[in-house]
Amino acid sequence: MINGENLVPAPIRWGMVGGGRGSQIGYIHRSAALRDGVFTLVAGAFDIDAGRGRDFGTGIGVAAERCYTDYTAMFAAEAARPDGIQAVSIATPNGTHFAISKAALEAGLHVVCEKPLCFTTAEAEELRALAAAKNRVVGVTYGYAGHQLIEQAREMIAAGALGEIRIVQMQFAHGFHNEAVEAANPATKWRVDPKMAGPSYVLGDIGTHPLYLSEVMLPQLKIKRLMCSRQSFVKSRAPLEDNAFTIMEYDSGAVGYVWSCAVNAGSMHGQKIRVIGSKASIEWWDERPNQMTFEVQGQPLQVLERGMGYLHPHALADDRIGGGHPEGLFEAWSNLYVRYAQAMVAMDQGRDFGTHYPGIDAGVEGVRWVENCVCSADAGAVWVDYA
Amino acid sequence: MINGENLVPAPIRWGMVGGGRGSQIGYIHRSAALRDGVFTLVAGAFDIDAGRGRDFGTGIGVAAERCYTDYTAMFAAEAARPDGIQAVSIATPNGTHFAISKAALEAGLHVVCEKPLCFTTAEAEELRALAAAKNRVVGVTYGYAGHQLIEQAREMIAAGALGEIRIVQMQFAHGFHNEAVEAANPATKWRVDPKMAGPSYVLGDIGTHPLYLSEVMLPQLKIKRLMCSRQSFVKSRAPLEDNAFTIMEYDSGAVGYVWSCAVNAGSMHGQKIRVIGSKASIEWWDERPNQMTFEVQGQPLQVLERGMGYLHPHALADDRIGGGHPEGLFEAWSNLYVRYAQAMVAMDQGRDFGTHYPGIDAGVEGVRWVENCVCSADAGAVWVDYA
Amino acid sequence: MINGENLVPAPIRWGMVGGGRGSQIGYIHRSAALRDGVFTLVAGAFDIDAGRGRDFGTGIGVAAERCYTDYTAMFAAEAARPDGIQAVSIATPNGTHFAISKAALEAGLHVVCEKPLCFTTAEAEELRALAAAKNRVVGVTYGYAGHQLIEQAREMIAAGALGEIRIVQMQFAHGFHNEAVEAANPATKWRVDPKMAGPSYVLGDIGTHPLYLSEVMLPQLKIKRLMCSRQSFVKSRAPLEDNAFTIMEYDSGAVGYVWSCAVNAGSMHGQKIRVIGSKASIEWWDERPNQMTFEVQGQPLQVLERGMGYLHPHALADDRIGGGHPEGLFEAWSNLYVRYAQAMVAMDQGRDFGTHYPGIDAGVEGVRWVENCVCSADAGAVWVDYA
Amino acid sequence: MINGENLVPAPIRWGMVGGGRGSQIGYIHRSAALRDGVFTLVAGAFDIDAGRGRDFGTGIGVAAERCYTDYTAMFAAEAARPDGIQAVSIATPNGTHFAISKAALEAGLHVVCEKPLCFTTAEAEELRALAAAKNRVVGVTYGYAGHQLIEQAREMIAAGALGEIRIVQMQFAHGFHNEAVEAANPATKWRVDPKMAGPSYVLGDIGTHPLYLSEVMLPQLKIKRLMCSRQSFVKSRAPLEDNAFTIMEYDSGAVGYVWSCAVNAGSMHGQKIRVIGSKASIEWWDERPNQMTFEVQGQPLQVLERGMGYLHPHALADDRIGGGHPEGLFEAWSNLYVRYAQAMVAMDQGRDFGTHYPGIDAGVEGVRWVENCVCSADAGAVWVDYA
Repeated sequence: MINGENLVPAPIRWGMVGGGRGSQIGYIHRSAALRDGVFTLVAGAFDIDAGRGRDFGTGIGVAAERCYTDYTAMFAAEAARPDGIQAVSIATPNGTHFAISKAALEAGLHVVCEKPLCFTTAEAEELRALAAAKNRVVGVTYGYAGHQLIEQAREMIAAGALGEIRIVQMQFAHGFHNEAVEAANPATKWRVDPKMAGPSYVLGDIGTHPLYLSEVMLPQLKIKRLMCSRQSFVKSRAPLEDNAFTIMEYDSGAVGYVWSCAVNAGSMHGQKIRVIGSKASIEWWDERPNQMTFEVQGQPLQVLERGMGYLHPHALADDRIGGGHPEGLFEAWSNLYVRYAQAMVAMDQGRDFGTHYPGIDAGVEGVRWVENCVCSADAGAVWVDYA
Repeated sequence: MINGENLVPAPIRWGMVGGGRGSQIGYIHRSAALRDGVFTLVAGAFDIDAGRGRDFGTGIGVAAERCYTDYTAMFAAEAARPDGIQAVSIATPNGTHFAISKAALEAGLHVVCEKPLCFTTAEAEELRALAAAKNRVVGVTYGYAGHQLIEQAREMIAAGALGEIRIVQMQFAHGFHNEAVEAANPATKWRVDPKMAGPSYVLGDIGTHPLYLSEVMLPQLKIKRLMCSRQSFVKSRAPLEDNAFTIMEYDSGAVGYVWSCAVNAGSMHGQKIRVIGSKASIEWWDERPNQMTFEVQGQPLQVLERGMGYLHPHALADDRIGGGHPEGLFEAWSNLYVRYAQAMVAMDQGRDFGTHYPGIDAGVEGVRWVENCVCSADAGAVWVDYA
Repeated sequence: MINGENLVPAPIRWGMVGGGRGSQIGYIHRSAALRDGVFTLVAGAFDIDAGRGRDFGTGIGVAAERCYTDYTAMFAAEAARPDGIQAVSIATPNGTHFAISKAALEAGLHVVCEKPLCFTTAEAEELRALAAAKNRVVGVTYGYAGHQLIEQAREMIAAGALGEIRIVQMQFAHGFHNEAVEAANPATKWRVDPKMAGPSYVLGDIGTHPLYLSEVMLPQLKIKRLMCSRQSFVKSRAPLEDNAFTIMEYDSGAVGYVWSCAVNAGSMHGQKIRVIGSKASIEWWDERPNQMTFEVQGQPLQVLERGMGYLHPHALADDRIGGGHPEGLFEAWSNLYVRYAQAMVAMDQGRDFGTHYPGIDAGVEGVRWVENCVCSADAGAVWVDYA
Repeated sequence: MINGENLVPAPIRWGMVGGGRGSQIGYIHRSAALRDGVFTLVAGAFDIDAGRGRDFGTGIGVAAERCYTDYTAMFAAEAARPDGIQAVSIATPNGTHFAISKAALEAGLHVVCEKPLCFTTAEAEELRALAAAKNRVVGVTYGYAGHQLIEQAREMIAAGALGEIRIVQMQFAHGFHNEAVEAANPATKWRVDPKMAGPSYVLGDIGTHPLYLSEVMLPQLKIKRLMCSRQSFVKSRAPLEDNAFTIMEYDSGAVGYVWSCAVNAGSMHGQKIRVIGSKASIEWWDERPNQMTFEVQGQPLQVLERGMGYLHPHALADDRIGGGHPEGLFEAWSNLYVRYAQAMVAMDQGRDFGTHYPGIDAGVEGVRWVENCVCSADAGAVWVDYA
C-alpha cells in the first residue's frame, strides 16, 4: 500500500518540456510525478510562448529563472547548476519527441516521454542505444499499464490460470473524432498532420495502448506477421487513418486483433483487452479499471475487484485506498511515475530494476508495430512478416 | 401486439423432419410454430430410429400412421392425402439440408430449414430456382432476427439516425467448445466433420447469424471483397475452424468485421452487432435482447427497451407482453414462424409478402459468405473479390 | 429439460374466465398453458361482452357453443358434459376473483387464479378450506417464481451457501404510473378503485411478487411483526397507495424490506430480491432473469447463468434451451403451468405433489401480508404484530 | 478544468492530527490537500506514538521539530511561530473529534474534520457557535460529495428536470464487516466501541454519506419525522448496529429511505442515491462515479458521463481530465480540499464563500440525524418528530 513514505531516498529533481497552461497531459504528468514525493518540479520549458510558459511555471511554484524559453536552453542551464534537474518529462507534439529525447539523453538526463517515442524504428533504436550508452532511464507513458489489475492479469496468466493462450482481442475505439473536430481545435489539429503526428493517427495514438497492455500481460508472445486495413472516414485526414483493423499471428500459434478507432460514435473510450486461453479468459476495460472479469469455461463468471485480498501481492502493492473505493487514471499514472523514479534511482546506483514499467523497449515496440501496420495497410492490407 | 388471433386464416398443416427426442432445436421449432395457431403439427419423420420417432411423435399428439420412417416416405404419403401437410421444417444435420429441401420443394411443400441451407452457392442457387419455379416459400431459421429491436435498428438506420454508415462490428463468440467436447457428444460430433458440417464450422454455424442481422439492418450494403483468417485451436477439428476473423469492405466504402468463435472461454454467447455511423451507433447483444443502446456522439448513451411507445411501430408489432417483462429467444422464433406462415399464405394466394423474414435469399447469402471466407482462408487469409 | 413429451398423461380440459381480446394477461395464460400439451383450451367466458367473447374464442379455436356469456353459465354447462372442463383459469379484475374461484371450486374445478386471490384473509381462508374439502388445486400466478434461478437460490440457501440469513431486500418498483395514466385507460382504471382492486394498489399488485419469491427461497422465515408506510403521490389514487415501504422482523431475528412502487419514474420493472446471509448474498432481477449474482464476502462476485451444468438439478429441470440463450417470462409461466397440471393430476390420483408451485397457501399469505401492511399504514405506519 | 494554477493566492500552511503510518484516511487527506498547491504540509501530530509519528512526518518532508507529540503541543507551538499553521485536518478516531476541533478553533485554526464531527447535537451546535465566533471554516469530509456528477444532479433537480421530488432512496451497504473482523484489527476495533465510536456504528459511519449527498442535491428538503430500525447481526457489536433501515417523511410530502449496512456480504460499497421525481429519476453509485443515469418516464434511459459538454458548467468546473478517463475518489477529495482552501481564503478576507462544500452545517446535520435515528431505534423503531 502506498502512503507516500519511503518510495525513493529523496525526491528526484525534475523538469518538464511542454505541458503548460491548457495541456491536460501536462497536468496528469505533474499530478502523478509530484504526488508521493518521488519527484520535485524545479524547472520547465512549458510553452512555446516563453512568457506564458514563465507565467505558468511560476504560478505552480517553479522559480522564474528556471522557466526556460526552450528545452535546449533548459538542458544547458540546468547542467551548469549543482542542483540541476536529474530527469525530464516530455509532453509535446509527437513530431518533437525524438529530438528532445535525444537531447535530454545527451545531457545525461533520465527521460519520461509521451508516446510515440518517435516515428521510425531506426530512430527508436538510436534512442535505445543512446540510453544504454548513457545509462539512463527512458520511460514511455503507456499510462493505463499502471492500473493494478493489469498486474493481476499478468500474474494469473503466468501462473497458467487461463491455460494455453489462444486469442488476444484488443481495442481502443472512441467516438470523439467522428467529425473533423480538429479543424477548429489547434490542440488536436497536429494529430492528423503527418509532419507532426507521424505515419499514423489512431494506430499510434491509441492502438498502441492496448498493444502495450498485451506486452505486459503476455511477455512471451512474439508477432510473426500481421495485416492491417486502415480507413480515413473523415476524408480530410487522409493519408492518416481514423479507423484500423490489425490482425496478428504470433509465433506460438495464437492470434491477436487490434481495433483502433476514433470514429466509434458515442463510445467514451472503448479500450479493452480480452485474453482467451484454453481454459479461461480475462477481460479488462479502461473505463472501469477497478474491475476485471475472469471467466473459466463451465463456471460462473467472476468479477475481480482492485484492492481485495484474493489478488496477487503484485496487484495489491500499489493500492492507495481499500477495495470498493474507485481509483482512477491518476493513480495509474502515479504508479508509473513511482516506478520511473525507482528505476532512475536503481540505475544511478548501478542496480537492475528490470522492465517493470513501460520503458525504452516498450517505446521501440510501439513504433515498430505502427511501422509494420502502415507498411501492410499501404500495400493494400496485405500480410507482412513482422520486422 | 400478438395475442393469438387473426394471424392466418387457418393453421397450416405442418410436418417435421428431424427434431425428435433429445433435440433442442426441434423443440424450439415446434414451440414457435404451434404457439399462435399458425401451424398445426400433423406429421413427422422425427428420428433416424423409426420406432423412437414414432414413440416421440405420438407422445406429442401426432397420429401414429403419420409418424414416418424417413422424409421420402413422408413426402410421398402426405402428398396422397387430402389433408396432407402443406409445409415442412427440416431440423437435421447440415449435410442433409440440401437433399431434403430439394425433395420437399419438388413435393410442392413450403420449407423451413435450419441454416446452412446447403454447402455451396451452386446448390443454394439451385434451391432458389426450384423454389421460384414451384412458387414455394423457403424460410431459413436465423432465429435471432425475430427479436423486435432488430426491426428498430433497421428503421432507425433507414431514417438516418446514425448518419452515413461506416463500420459494422459483428461477433458470435462463445466458449462452449474450448475443448474437444464433441469427442464424447454425438449431438455435436458431426459439426466438426466436413462431410456432415460442410466446409466450415464456426463461420457457418454461428458467424452467419450476426451477418444476417447486418443484412436486415443494412439492406443496401454489398460486400466488395473480404479476407478471412481461420484457426483450429482444438487440433482435431482441422480443417474446420473453431475461430475466424473476417474483414469486409463494402461497395459504399464502409467496412465490416465478423469474429466467429467457439473457443472464447467463459463467454455464454457473445453475439453482438454494433453499427457505427457518422453521427451515432447502435449496439445489440443477443443475451440481453430486450435492450439496445443508441449512442449519439456528444450526447448521453441511451438504452432503448422493447415494448416502449417511443419505438417504431414495426418494432412494436410483434410484442406479446409489455415493456419491462423479458421476452426471450422463443418469442423471436415465434415471430419468424408467424411471418413464415403469412408468407406461405400470401404465396398460395399469389400475393407478394416481400422479404420481411429470413428466406431463400438469406439462405443463399449465408452460403455464399462462408464459401468466400473459406476461399480466402485456404489461400492464406488473402483478400478475395466477393463472388 | 422440457421438450413437450411426457409431462402429463393427457392434456387437461381447460377453460378461461376473462383474458379475451386486448388482455395481455390472457395471452400469457394461454401461451403458458397450451405450450407443452399439458392443457387443451375447450371453453371460455372470455369477455363481459358476450359477442366479442365468442368472436374471440372461436378465432382461437374454441367451439362456438363453448364460448359462454359468463362464468356461471360456463360452469353449469360444462359440468353437464362428459368432456367438460377439468380446470379453469381466472384472469379478471381483482374484485371478482373470490366469487369466481369459489364458484369454480364448488363446481369441482381445479383453479388457476390471478393474484390477489381475494381481499381479506377471511375470504382466503374460506377458499383454502373449500379447496381442501373439494380436493382441488388452486394455483396463484406469481409468475416470476417460475424462473429456474429461483430454484437455484432456494437450493443454495437450503444448503447453507449463504450462512445464517440476516436480511431480505425486496423491491418491485416501476415507473409506468408516475402520472394518472389510469384516467385515460380503462384497462388500468380499476386498479386504483378500492371496490375493484381491494384495499391496496402497489402492495398487492406488485409487492406480493417479490414477497412470494422470498417465501420460495426462504420457507422457514416467519414474519413476526411489520410496519408499512404508504403514499399516494398521484392524489386521485388515495386511499390506494402508489408507493409503500414495508419493514419486517422475522421470528429468526432476520429482517426484511419491501419497496413497492409504481411511480419510480423511468424504471422498467425494478423487481429485485437480495438475500443476505452471514457468509454470502444472492441477488436476482426479473429483467435479467437468466442471471443471478452470488457474492461470497471476500471472494470475487460470481454471475450464475441459467442452463449451466454447475447449477442444482432442480434449477436445470425446466430448461427448454441451453445456457446463453435468453429465456423470458413466458418460459417462467410455462414452468408454472406444467406444475399446476402435474399437481392437478396428482390430486386427482390421490398423490401428494407438495407445494412446489404458488398454490392456495401462497394466495392466502399474499392476502394476509397486504392486510397487515394496510393495517399498519392506516394506523400511522406503526408496527403491528403479524396476524 | 483544474490544472493546478490559480486556485488560491498562496498555499495554506497546514497541519494534521492523526493520519500517520498505516492510516488510509491520512493518505487521502494529504493526497487531496497537497495536490494542486492549495495547502502545504508543515506540521503534524501524526501518531499517538510520538517517535513513530516523527519518523513518519520527517519521512514525508515535515521538519522534525514540527512533528509534535500531540495536538495540544502542536497548537501551542505553531501559534507561537510567525509561519505557524493556518489550518488543521483531524483524522483520529471519532471519540476525539469534538475535543480536537474545539481546541483547534480556539487556537484560531481553520479545521477539516473527519465525520462524525462529534456525538451529540449539543456538541455540534457548540462547535458551530465557536466557528462562527472565531470566524473559522470547519470542513467535514463527506468526500463523495466532491464527485462532479453530484453537482450535475443538483443542477438538474434545481432546474426541474425531475419534476416534483417524491422519493429519495439512499444506501451505503457494504459487506466487509459481515464477521467480527474488528476482533483482530485495532484499526477497526474502536468503531464498534461506543466510547470511541459514539452512539451508532453504521448510521454515523456510512449512512451519513448518502444522507449528505441528498442534502447537496435537495437543499430544500427538511425531515419532518423519521423511524429507524437497527440490528447488531454480529452480536458482540451490540448496542452498536451493523445494519439499519431509516424511513423519513419530509415537510414537502416526499419520503426518503436510508439503508446503512456493514454486513451486506459480498458488496464492495453499495453507496447509491436515487432521486425520484414526478417526471424522471436520477441515480448515482459511488463505485462508478463517472456515470449517472437519468431516466425520464416513457423515454430511453440515459447515461450521463463526467466530462462531457452536455453537463452543467458547475459539473465541468472541477474536471482534471477529459470524459472517458476514469476519475476516482482521490479527485473527489481533491475537489473538496480546493473548496475548503478557497473558503478559508474567503473567510480570511471577509468574503462569503457560501455553502458549496460540506461544512459545519453538514457536520451538525449528520450528528442530528444519527441522534434522531438512535432515539427512534432505541424506543422500538418508532416514529420520532425530527428534533
